[in-house]
Amino acid sequence: MSDTFESVDLDRLRSGFGVKWGLDDDLLNAWVADMDFGIPGPVRARLREVVDREDFGYPHWPGGDPVVAAFEQRMRDRYGWAPEPGRTRVFTDLIQILQVVIEHATAPGDGIALHVPNYPPFLASIHRAGRRPVPLPVLKGERGWEFPVDARRLRDEGCTMLLLVNPHNPTGRVFRREELRAFADAARELDLVVLSDEIHADLTYDPHRHVPFASLDDDTAARTITATSATKAFNLAATRCAVAHVGHEGVRRELDRAPLDYFGTPSLLGRVATVAAWRESEDWHRRLMHRLTRNRDLVADWSRESDVDCVPPEATYLAWLDFSRTGLTDPADAVLRAGVRLSPGPEFAQHTAVDAKPFARLNFATSEDLLLRVLAGIDGAVNG
Amino acid sequence: MSDTFESVDLDRLRSGFGVKWGLDDDLLNAWVADMDFGIPGPVRARLREVVDREDFGYPHWPGGDPVVAAFEQRMRDRYGWAPEPGRTRVFTDLIQILQVVIEHATAPGDGIALHVPNYPPFLASIHRAGRRPVPLPVLKGERGWEFPVDARRLRDEGCTMLLLVNPHNPTGRVFRREELRAFADAARELDLVVLSDEIHADLTYDPHRHVPFASLDDDTAARTITATSATKAFNLAATRCAVAHVGHEGVRRELDRAPLDYFGTPSLLGRVATVAAWRESEDWHRRLMHRLTRNRDLVADWSRESDVDCVPPEATYLAWLDFSRTGLTDPADAVLRAGVRLSPGPEFAQHTAVDAKPFARLNFATSEDLLLRVLAGIDGAVNG
Ligand SMILES: Cc1ncc(COP(=O)(O)O)c(C=O)c1O
Ligand SMILES: Cc1ncc(COP(=O)(O)O)c(C=O)c1O
Repeated sequence: MSDTFESVDLDRLRSGFGVKWGLDDDLLNAWVADMDFGIPGPVRARLREVVDREDFGYPHWPGGDPVVAAFEQRMRDRYGWAPEPGRTRVFTDLIQILQVVIEHATAPGDGIALHVPNYPPFLASIHRAGRRPVPLPVLKGERGWEFPVDARRLRDEGCTMLLLVNPHNPTGRVFRREELRAFADAARELDLVVLSDEIHADLTYDPHRHVPFASLDDDTAARTITATSATKAFNLAATRCAVAHVGHEGVRRELDRAPLDYFGTPSLLGRVATVAAWRESEDWHRRLMHRLTRNRDLVADWSRESDVDCVPPEATYLAWLDFSRTGLTDPADAVLRAGVRLSPGPEFAQHTAVDAKPFARLNFATSEDLLLRVLAGIDGAVNG
Repeated sequence: MSDTFESVDLDRLRSGFGVKWGLDDDLLNAWVADMDFGIPGPVRARLREVVDREDFGYPHWPGGDPVVAAFEQRMRDRYGWAPEPGRTRVFTDLIQILQVVIEHATAPGDGIALHVPNYPPFLASIHRAGRRPVPLPVLKGERGWEFPVDARRLRDEGCTMLLLVNPHNPTGRVFRREELRAFADAARELDLVVLSDEIHADLTYDPHRHVPFASLDDDTAARTITATSATKAFNLAATRCAVAHVGHEGVRRELDRAPLDYFGTPSLLGRVATVAAWRESEDWHRRLMHRLTRNRDLVADWSRESDVDCVPPEATYLAWLDFSRTGLTDPADAVLRAGVRLSPGPEFAQHTAVDAKPFARLNFATSEDLLLRVLAGIDGAVNG
């Protein structure tokens, strides 16, 4: 099965599909946000059906939005969490959800706590909205990444909101139940609104298990906005369709006060793709995880032989590479000169005092062949 | 050519395509917002291309958004108006644009002037936002519909915004240059923000000509937000993609202050469909106008023989039927009992004191066969 998956991908790469990965400017672009694979067959089939039927009129769902139903069902089936009915809204993307929640749940000048390093557009959005990113520590301990939380500091920093990215980008760590418990306790103590971005949940590697933050207990559910989308795990970024389960009553009322179409709406095609991904694409997803697991192990093996350190991710197709031992002062730039583009570490700490200079992020969602060339390029930069 | 267009449509209707038009509940649903035709072949082809290429990653347009470029070019080529570069934003739909402009250009309690009857969601949006719809008169004169404007009344009513729907929904009138001039003069006198909804412009019948409001002069351009979309003339409502050219500097600055992704974004597929419609679908559009012109004439001929009056529309696939002479107190309801669903007149005057009870709106964008059955149904209600 994994062979089919791989050979299809390689055919595509050969026929120009992998343009983002180096066929355009002779670089191996391991900094992109997408996977270098196609989309699930069932998604393709459903989209073709809509196009061939040519019925592009106003959609009409007397039984409720099918995206919301698919989301609720998936949370129950996969994660044992039953989202409260009537609290899920559809948006076009996760960044939009973050920006809307910041705008309507916090005030200018407020602190927003989040782990740093973090997904660069989140840090940029907090800063541009005139709020202050308050870094939560991401520490390298004996057993990998650690995420302690200190409620007192968040209070001192004037935090009104906690932004969780779980699984964490860029380290790929899947938060343990005890860690989530500690975040929840701090959130309760300080009465924080929590936005929990769980977009990478479906990319969790065995034996790790994703736990939705809102599933912890009733108090946590009642202060949390859970945001997710099929775009990451099913490679559908262009379709622009995301959901937010708004457990927080104050934020929900605030959003309900906005004009009904004020935040826009995803297209029918985006909705059809999302539903097909969540309801019909398990086979594809299984093969994907097989391929990604092999790539992750390959990166881990390579790292053990190299001066570039990497705690193997427990989820995501991202590896947070630590170049500290190489002595390189700007590792992404050095690697770029060897023909491989990585995401520079400092972008993941922008607008904070956290030092991410020795780091760079690698996207390993490509064929084994290209990944090996990427790793060889990094070796070249480090050793040459 | 028109024959091809028609026979394709009839085949579709026979194979269940025309579900909205009566195959579901034995009603002929002439109240829907869409056309009972397919989509342009070039749109279908481009969408298929994207689906088959399977590249659904984050889109990237170093040269600028292709939707904006296609909009600017179309305005120049078709309407002799050169939108000022850098002022066009993409949204997901027209209602969203209206709601965003209301929120950011007016204050609660303000009056918003618009012609009544008008598109029901616009009246509902104004009301729900806590603004007051201030009806501009739509009068039946010797030569059809007349749209006089009285600046003094708008001042007395505390208007800060003028909402133009041109071509006008539901009458299908295309505003003359002199009429636009009078609106522009009033807007200047009262310093109004103008939102000009021109979504039906591409559905203007010969020999009428659509004039973009912002093309009148510099002062008018500098106070106008022009909103349009390919969804109406090319039957693509489900794709959710619309544009707003924000000529008004204050509104533009206000929107620029919002977070960058706050209003969401159309999908890649919606954008591809829009560009293919605007750049590649002239043949289809020509055949469409041929078909619609025949239907419009058919409605006009029928009306002349009937007690239902109708000033033939100069644009749109909508006919605003006046049942005054029939004595029916609720014409849409009477017609419904004869198996034909029209849009009830009062919806087009909601939240105002304007009396639209004797009216109902007909959507005539269907096959000649079905249209004849619709008109026969109306006759049955009127005569029986
Ligand atoms: C943690 C995280 N959240 C959100 C996103 C982006 O989501 P969207 O494209 O829906 O804005 C990404 C994309 O890489 C991500 O890594
Ligand atoms: C005048 C007018 N404006 C806007 C719309 C709706 O546009 P959208 O679907 O983009 O909200 C319609 C639909 O019928 C309309 O008639």
